[in-house]
Amino acid sequence: MQDRIDHVEACLDGLLPTPEEAPARLHEAMRYAVLGGGKRVRAAMVYAAGHACTSGAMPVSVGTGLDCAAASIELIHAYSLVHDDLPCMDDDTLRRGRPTVHVQFDEATAMLAGDALQPLAFELLAEMPIAPALVVQASRVLARAAGSRGMAGGQAIDLYSVGQSLTREQLQTMHSLKTGALLVASVALGGVVAGASSSQRNALDDYAGAVGLAFQVVDDILDVTADTASLGKTAGKDAADNKPTYVSLLGLDDARALAESLRTDAHAAIAPLGEGAKYLAALADFIVLRDR
Amino acid sequence: MQDRIDHVEACLDGLLPTPEEAPARLHEAMRYAVLGGGKRVRAAMVYAAGHACTSGAMPVSVGTGLDCAAASIELIHAYSLVHDDLPCMDDDTLRRGRPTVHVQFDEATAMLAGDALQPLAFELLAEMPIAPALVVQASRVLARAAGSRGMAGGQAIDLYSVGQSLTREQLQTMHSLKTGALLVASVALGGVVAGASSSQRNALDDYAGAVGLAFQVVDDILDVTADTASLGKTAGKDAADNKPTYVSLLGLDDARALAESLRTDAHAAIAPLGEGAKYLAALADFIVLRDR
Repeated sequence: MQDRIDHVEACLDGLLPTPEEAPARLHEAMRYAVLGGGKRVRAAMVYAAGHACTSGAMPVSVGTGLDCAAASIELIHAYSLVHDDLPCMDDDTLRRGRPTVHVQFDEATAMLAGDALQPLAFELLAEMPIAPALVVQASRVLARAAGSRGMAGGQAIDLYSVGQSLTREQLQTMHSLKTGALLVASVALGGVVAGASSSQRNALDDYAGAVGLAFQVVDDILDVTADTASLGKTAGKDAADNKPTYVSLLGLDDARALAESLRTDAHAAIAPLGEGAKYLAALADFIVLRDR
Repeated sequence: MQDRIDHVEACLDGLLPTPEEAPARLHEAMRYAVLGGGKRVRAAMVYAAGHACTSGAMPVSVGTGLDCAAASIELIHAYSLVHDDLPCMDDDTLRRGRPTVHVQFDEATAMLAGDALQPLAFELLAEMPIAPALVVQASRVLARAAGSRGMAGGQAIDLYSVGQSLTREQLQTMHSLKTGALLVASVALGGVVAGASSSQRNALDDYAGAVGLAFQVVDDILDVTADTASLGKTAGKDAADNKPTYVSLLGLDDARALAESLRTDAHAAIAPLGEGAKYLAALADFIVLRDR
């Protein structure tokens, strides 16, 4: 899987405009936002899901399609971080161990860089060398995940919940949109590109639901237990911002138990996919057992 | 054509999420940004171009496709205005005669509303009931027009040019991206949805290039000659911001002559399309002869 991650990094590097092309500062900011860091969990999900739904040798067109889908989801993720870090949102200064985009450049450039990364993701999907009907499906999946009924909606709920007390159900809704929607879309995109059957898609959806939630629970745990240096972003920020988290709601022990139980659910969901799902299984383990 | 404009208004009203759906404030802001005002020039361009490339009765699928394309381009245009008006960009408080979105709501909501309108545009294209290969082409056209080599790039150049002196060529490059790209995409989308031939597409491209530029020249003229009440936005703002414009560069008389000459070019470009291009011709006239 590491070779795929290296490959998506090279794809992103190759497809992002360079500062040789005007407007130089905008293109520099877009590259800064996307390249150099990031765990590429979402890209890995695309590849792992694609692998799970392809029996035998993978056609070249599917492989290239997965590259495009993996890069496009990383572009959307990167744009969301840039906007989320802005002063009018989380006002964060550190991301992946470096100054955030608006600190390194300026607010307007950060906003425009995010604005330009989003359509680049859709342009990339439109370049996938697979059946046009599948490209259209992929574009719909990504668009829904990024919109107000997905990630952007989750960010808004997060914003409006600062200082509020949320029930566990409300917290789960918020995260299922804010973080979950894009993770679920990553898995779904891999399936669409690989031409997954409807039973394969159902297994992927169940897996993605569990893993998406686990990702946020573990993020909340790490915000409390890890230090800023190993996280690469400001630790303890949620508590300082008085944001509701799984740890503030359930306590550390129960949050850990929840993450572990979601990991079990994820493994169970992909059991019907057989040996091909081994990368998906490994990703569920990585997400729950990571320390940053 | 007015019935089409009324129709796209109804389409937008129907497709935008309502405040009954959470997050209410975000959905309210999205509706505020898109509905109630706006000349819908870009939507009209989509319909006019589609009409010019359809001989005989228009198939229902093409008609519905044009509705989706027209609404999607208006979503992208609306999002761009919301972000452009933010304090870190133009810091404008008035738009279409009403407080701008960040004044009426707040900065974070305005940013997220824009962020969520953009994928909604791509989702809408993915719903067009036409051949998937044409949907993919349309999505590519819109994505390129919105990105750093299109509208977002133009906004960045505009931002970085405040207080700079630009040559006429540099000013033209900036506008061909900032305003032109989306107008050109509107015309192209109409052609794609209607299944235009390559000679039809060439005629549309030439027309769109002239009209896109004319639009900005006339905007610059109106910024000087019209008052705030009739513009619905702050008049004289470009001069106050020390922004280069066609009027500051050429003077008022030469700017008016340029607009008139571009109108002639636009008419010449669509002559080969015959009678079907009458709405495109009327739009070129409207853009150059409007007083707001």
